[in-house]
Amino acid sequence: MTAGNPLLSDRDVAFLLYEVHDAAALLRLPAFADHDRDTFDLFLANARSFAREVLYPAYRPMDEAAPTFEGGRIQVHPRMRAIWPRLRELGVITASRPVEVGGQQLPRTVAVLAEAYLMAANLGAYCYAGLTAGAAHLIEAFGSDDLKDRYMRRMYAGEWTGTMALTEPQAGSSLADLRTRAVPREDGTYAIQGGKIFISGGDHDLADNIVHLTLARIDGAPAGIKGISLFAIPRLWPGPDGLVDNDVSTAGMIHKIGWRGLPSLVINFGERGACRGELVGAPGHGLSYMFQMMNEARLMVGLNGVATAAVAYHESLAYARERRQGRLPGRRDPHSPPVPIIEHADVRRMLLRQKAIVEGGLSLLVETARLTDLAHHADDEELRRRSALLLDLLTPIAKSFAAERGYDSNALALQIHGGYGYSSEYLPEAWLRDQKLNSIHEGTTTIHGLDLLGRRALAPGALQALGREILQTCSQAQAAGVDLGDVAALQEAAGAAGALIAELAGHHLADPERMLRHSHDVLDIFMTITVAWQWLRQATAARTALSRGTLSTGDDAFYRGKLQAAQYWLRTELPRVAPLVRLCRDEEDSYANTRPEWF
Amino acid sequence: MTAGNPLLSDRDVAFLLYEVHDAAALLRLPAFADHDRDTFDLFLANARSFAREVLYPAYRPMDEAAPTFEGGRIQVHPRMRAIWPRLRELGVITASRPVEVGGQQLPRTVAVLAEAYLMAANLGAYCYAGLTAGAAHLIEAFGSDDLKDRYMRRMYAGEWTGTMALTEPQAGSSLADLRTRAVPREDGTYAIQGGKIFISGGDHDLADNIVHLTLARIDGAPAGIKGISLFAIPRLWPGPDGLVDNDVSTAGMIHKIGWRGLPSLVINFGERGACRGELVGAPGHGLSYMFQMMNEARLMVGLNGVATAAVAYHESLAYARERRQGRLPGRRDPHSPPVPIIEHADVRRMLLRQKAIVEGGLSLLVETARLTDLAHHADDEELRRRSALLLDLLTPIAKSFAAERGYDSNALALQIHGGYGYSSEYLPEAWLRDQKLNSIHEGTTTIHGLDLLGRRALAPGALQALGREILQTCSQAQAAGVDLGDVAALQEAAGAAGALIAELAGHHLADPERMLRHSHDVLDIFMTITVAWQWLRQATAARTALSRGTLSTGDDAFYRGKLQAAQYWLRTELPRVAPLVRLCRDEEDSYANTRPEWF
Repeated sequence: MTAGNPLLSDRDVAFLLYEVHDAAALLRLPAFADHDRDTFDLFLANARSFAREVLYPAYRPMDEAAPTFEGGRIQVHPRMRAIWPRLRELGVITASRPVEVGGQQLPRTVAVLAEAYLMAANLGAYCYAGLTAGAAHLIEAFGSDDLKDRYMRRMYAGEWTGTMALTEPQAGSSLADLRTRAVPREDGTYAIQGGKIFISGGDHDLADNIVHLTLARIDGAPAGIKGISLFAIPRLWPGPDGLVDNDVSTAGMIHKIGWRGLPSLVINFGERGACRGELVGAPGHGLSYMFQMMNEARLMVGLNGVATAAVAYHESLAYARERRQGRLPGRRDPHSPPVPIIEHADVRRMLLRQKAIVEGGLSLLVETARLTDLAHHADDEELRRRSALLLDLLTPIAKSFAAERGYDSNALALQIHGGYGYSSEYLPEAWLRDQKLNSIHEGTTTIHGLDLLGRRALAPGALQALGREILQTCSQAQAAGVDLGDVAALQEAAGAAGALIAELAGHHLADPERMLRHSHDVLDIFMTITVAWQWLRQATAARTALSRGTLSTGDDAFYRGKLQAAQYWLRTELPRVAPLVRLCRDEEDSYANTRPEWF
Repeated sequence: MTAGNPLLSDRDVAFLLYEVHDAAALLRLPAFADHDRDTFDLFLANARSFAREVLYPAYRPMDEAAPTFEGGRIQVHPRMRAIWPRLRELGVITASRPVEVGGQQLPRTVAVLAEAYLMAANLGAYCYAGLTAGAAHLIEAFGSDDLKDRYMRRMYAGEWTGTMALTEPQAGSSLADLRTRAVPREDGTYAIQGGKIFISGGDHDLADNIVHLTLARIDGAPAGIKGISLFAIPRLWPGPDGLVDNDVSTAGMIHKIGWRGLPSLVINFGERGACRGELVGAPGHGLSYMFQMMNEARLMVGLNGVATAAVAYHESLAYARERRQGRLPGRRDPHSPPVPIIEHADVRRMLLRQKAIVEGGLSLLVETARLTDLAHHADDEELRRRSALLLDLLTPIAKSFAAERGYDSNALALQIHGGYGYSSEYLPEAWLRDQKLNSIHEGTTTIHGLDLLGRRALAPGALQALGREILQTCSQAQAAGVDLGDVAALQEAAGAAGALIAELAGHHLADPERMLRHSHDVLDIFMTITVAWQWLRQATAARTALSRGTLSTGDDAFYRGKLQAAQYWLRTELPRVAPLVRLCRDEEDSYANTRPEWF
């Protein structure tokens, strides 16, 4: 059943890249001058076949047998040990890093699509590379030349891997409360003491060394987030005579219900008082530096959410085309053969909803990648600024959309499989388990709601930048002949959301609790609208292509499918916005006013 | 963490029973004349302490080690073998059966609440009893005196257990396509040959024998559902010299992701041509008889959905009260201690949503039980008829609500546990796995949508009976001083739903596909409205109690919590109805018109 799962639709990837997000335009930027469409396509083709031929067949065995923890060390699945050197060769760790640090300097717009194939195939396997890239990028951005030389290069080469070490058991999502201590030593390094939890890839036997990019508090630093600094703490210390023990130990492994290829660990630093870390950047700036990796990780999680929904969507689509059951309403002749279940309207509802979530979410993630490219490489300073602002706004939205709606999508893929979907002999239940983490790690959905409404949506110019993009999409859609009612619906919803934020912002300083009461609903509103925006862009491109005529049968079907999914999102999901806006404006107070003892 | 989970709120159970659903009124019916409130409470108290003290501690071990399948036989968990005799003693199999067949003749209204505790504690363990009760009830209702004597009595006593054997691999949900053959034999029995799949409790080592209530086709019978008959097929044939082999074999065990205490099996009849079955009732009526067990099983699944959401809700409530993390908006002093997470508004949102689903769903299930009691035992024939009609209407709604919204609720319980919720060392992930089956077995949600709109909502008088009940609730609410806007909102939504059905029914014969296009949305509309109805009833009772004054602190808090949850459902969920009604009336055609090749 699962052989031949395409992971993503290649046609859709090309469509998003060239027809919706205009990757060709990026080639005009100096940073990407050495590339052309062929190098983009080649990179994608390599990632895609590696994903299908190597990563995907290893997914099930890696899900069935999580890494083992014995004698204080983690051993990964044997399949993973074979995969790692090939993943390094593929160049995914540095795909979008500059040539001068050993990268291929590809646009993120291209790289994310390659990563989506890899994560759809085997999320755990890919994430060793993704985490290493993010950790090395922190050193690239904020570390001294010496640190870059001694750590970053080896990490980008995949000789060493990296982690992000933030969470502590007592603090959870509240980083202000973290306690890991750093005491300056005479040699310029810091003695580190503390414990971290949920450290993905925190130990393994894939590479020579592991560098933990760790938040800690230098003795005497102020309480709260202002006292947090960033350290690179290698598992083995790179001394003059090679790698030596650095008193970093694995204290336990979390028994996760998914992401089973990648261990999540309890890591202790300095149990014997002999752990050294190196300060990255200036003291007290740790959290602001770490936001780079956190934002990258959030987009990686968002992409993973889409990828995990995608592989399950394709599985359920194939199943719905093969599995025959029942007959259509009004054609109940028991002598007629049962129909493939895709003939049942409600099964197509479940498939189209998945398609709308997967392809709409992927488009939103590609948009964040394009904004990343523009924020760093656009010629025009104003465009760079605006792109960064918009990227900042979209990050929690894209991450939460993929996590929350991705989970809905994965549940539908299981549902389409009926009783078989409830069996661990089929894969949809495994992907559903995987997806569940995405609303929790890299910031829970609650936190992203608070972050969006309490900070990102209030950044001067941010909402205006989004409004401008949506307006532009609306005029292009209108020009392309997209249904005017659909265009108007998006414009209206976006207007109402903007007005809502302005109204809530009035409570900002005087009564933040009141302002943030419906932060979850506000996040939901923005998730729904931004994906509607992406679907209107896709409908515009599809309508344009269809109006050109002379399409192949496959292309014709592809574009018509796009129009149906766009219609689905704009007419069945977007109408959820108005009642949500009303709830927020009415300041509906059911849960806000429920006292803990009333439950 | 999980010791002391109350499973359900005892206060809520008493509230639903006596303040909302007026169980005391049932005592006036002759059928329940031998009971009083004390016997109700005693039965509940026994079930509750058995659930807490015996079943719940066995849940985790039974989840961790599913039954084994070796040498053609299933061995259940050792804890289950210890539980079974005590479950029999508790009298749950026959709680609501008449005295003359060995029952206690309790109202279903009381029995379901006992069952809810048992399923919240350990759904797999309870279901051996529940399935046996349903199977024996089929023989009680449609079998000859001889069958009752030879099978039913032993099943009601728990000496033998029962199953429902419907599904076949090639037919799935489409019972019209089942092929199991029955050939008349000279001795009046039938030779049975065929294979069934997903047979819960189809084998085990708990009892002396297992009786499969099986749908099969007598040779020469017409195709489709009209050719289906009902058979009792014992695993061991009760002959003059005791139990002898009856050629019933277990061909495989499904590796389910949840409900792991109860095996789901592939059962073959007559592999050696030596399997005998006994016809129950008249030939060709099998499916109509089986609807009794199917409807009972649907309500059992609905109750299980609520129970599974309830135990997880209570777990997350206790966690939210204990776990300290972060500070409230606007009070960010890092020197202040972190607050229990229940202080965060968005955590209370997740808790109140769970409470609304759990206690609203439970009230709807108690309502179906009360209707069952009235349908069988009311003095007034018209009331019996109307109750049966309303029960028929509410069955797919209550089942699907519990399955779908219960799943949302279970996901929230996991989410509140954060990263720990993603670990198999905590129980919320186990209950989430359990819950996932409920949208699949005993009719998928798709099938219940089609059944509701295509049949049950069209039954003459059914919608009127519901409308009448809702209207009565609205006037009582108004009289009790419940917010008039909330009352009006329910009345309006119910009116719109009724008008929608009338409009759709216009397409009934001419174009059933068109009529049924939005059956899923129609089901959603009715789920949302009927639970809003139950919440308005609860708000009415709470408002009445509060207006009496002189309440204990605990009672005051309890009723205020009820008002908040009612407000949550009426103001944040009920507004979903209007856009859904609009979708249906507009005949939104995104998925209906998507051709299979366009995906």
